[in-house]
Amino acid sequence: MTPAAPTPAYRRLSVEERRSQLLTSALDLFAHRAPEEVSLDDVAEAAGVSRPLVYRYFPGGKQQLYEAALRSAADELQHCFDEPREGPLLPRLSRALDRYLTFVDEHGTGFSALLQGGSVVETSRTTAIVDGVRRVAAEHILSHLGVTGPGSSLRMTIRMWITAVEASSLIWLDEDKQPQAEELRDWLVEQFVAMLTVTARRDPQTEALVRALDEDVRH
Amino acid sequence: MTPAAPTPAYRRLSVEERRSQLLTSALDLFAHRAPEEVSLDDVAEAAGVSRPLVYRYFPGGKQQLYEAALRSAADELQHCFDEPREGPLLPRLSRALDRYLTFVDEHGTGFSALLQGGSVVETSRTTAIVDGVRRVAAEHILSHLGVTGPGSSLRMTIRMWITAVEASSLIWLDEDKQPQAEELRDWLVEQFVAMLTVTARRDPQTEALVRALDEDVRH
Repeated sequence: MTPAAPTPAYRRLSVEERRSQLLTSALDLFAHRAPEEVSLDDVAEAAGVSRPLVYRYFPGGKQQLYEAALRSAADELQHCFDEPREGPLLPRLSRALDRYLTFVDEHGTGFSALLQGGSVVETSRTTAIVDGVRRVAAEHILSHLGVTGPGSSLRMTIRMWITAVEASSLIWLDEDKQPQAEELRDWLVEQFVAMLTVTARRDPQTEALVRALDEDVRH
Repeated sequence: MTPAAPTPAYRRLSVEERRSQLLTSALDLFAHRAPEEVSLDDVAEAAGVSRPLVYRYFPGGKQQLYEAALRSAADELQHCFDEPREGPLLPRLSRALDRYLTFVDEHGTGFSALLQGGSVVETSRTTAIVDGVRRVAAEHILSHLGVTGPGSSLRMTIRMWITAVEASSLIWLDEDKQPQAEELRDWLVEQFVAMLTVTARRDPQTEALVRALDEDVRH
């Protein structure tokens, strides 16, 4: 009737394309609302498809959709950590943090809801997905640092810093993204070195690492 | 018939005493099992009372019991932060950490389940209880530091350290409570100073605090 009006595109998509389109729409909704406030209807509307179609892809309903969206966000987040193993170490960490903070910036509310827990769609499976990302982050850091057999002090320090990064990015979202991402990034890199330096006082493995980081900065 | 056999004490308790007895039994169970694995039957058995009695006190069932137990644990945890405002600052922090680590030690599994989320009894209300404890911890620290109008850099640093303390105590439980609590405590105090020192480089309020802490250590 009104051919000029924008209509949702019903073009034929492959199963994978359709699934990915639905997940993108869902992630976009989760980025602005808490998971429990997103319905399958909302996703259908956002993607411009029928509700039965959303159900066909996610017969487990909202919970299944949420987990699939979370897994897709987790994959995307893990890509932030891909960084070539060349050049000085701290700038590599800075670049990974830049990508991470961009991700946080784009996924706002959904990211907070996810990390803060307390959502009605939170289960031990969703927690396992989030823990998986933390584990991958720790492995990346250790691998960049060239450590193969990390002792418990070093592992604890790295995991503590990762948690601190999460906490600070939640606070950052709460505080209307102040300070600027670049400043937050530099501060986090400095916290990384400071935390390792404390551990280095009682752990030879970490001490050797801190010395290497220091040499790295001088060259 | 066999008067020598130990029987549960059915003595008359006041409503408050009974409630507190049930919560103590529940907390004890939550300390060794994940919340979803504790039933009202278990609590009745542990407290040596009938199941209907447990239901009379917690008509909302497991969820209500869990929240009440959590709130009671949160109150107990907050007492760890009570520390007289006298003497050097860092030893005050050490003493509060000692009490905190004793609490973590005693509440083991329940404490992890609580902080890690992903439990089926996790809701926005339980999250709010946990966040409340974090907020109280931050207020205590700021008050001991003598800060009344904390800027965002200082607040972020304190909250980051609190999260780091939580993370490290979870890891500590995972790693069979290694290192010794005293060593973990000293390391956490040093991390506190190190994190503040990094922030001090760009924030005058934090810089003044770090100078005061430093003076404190010298005297």
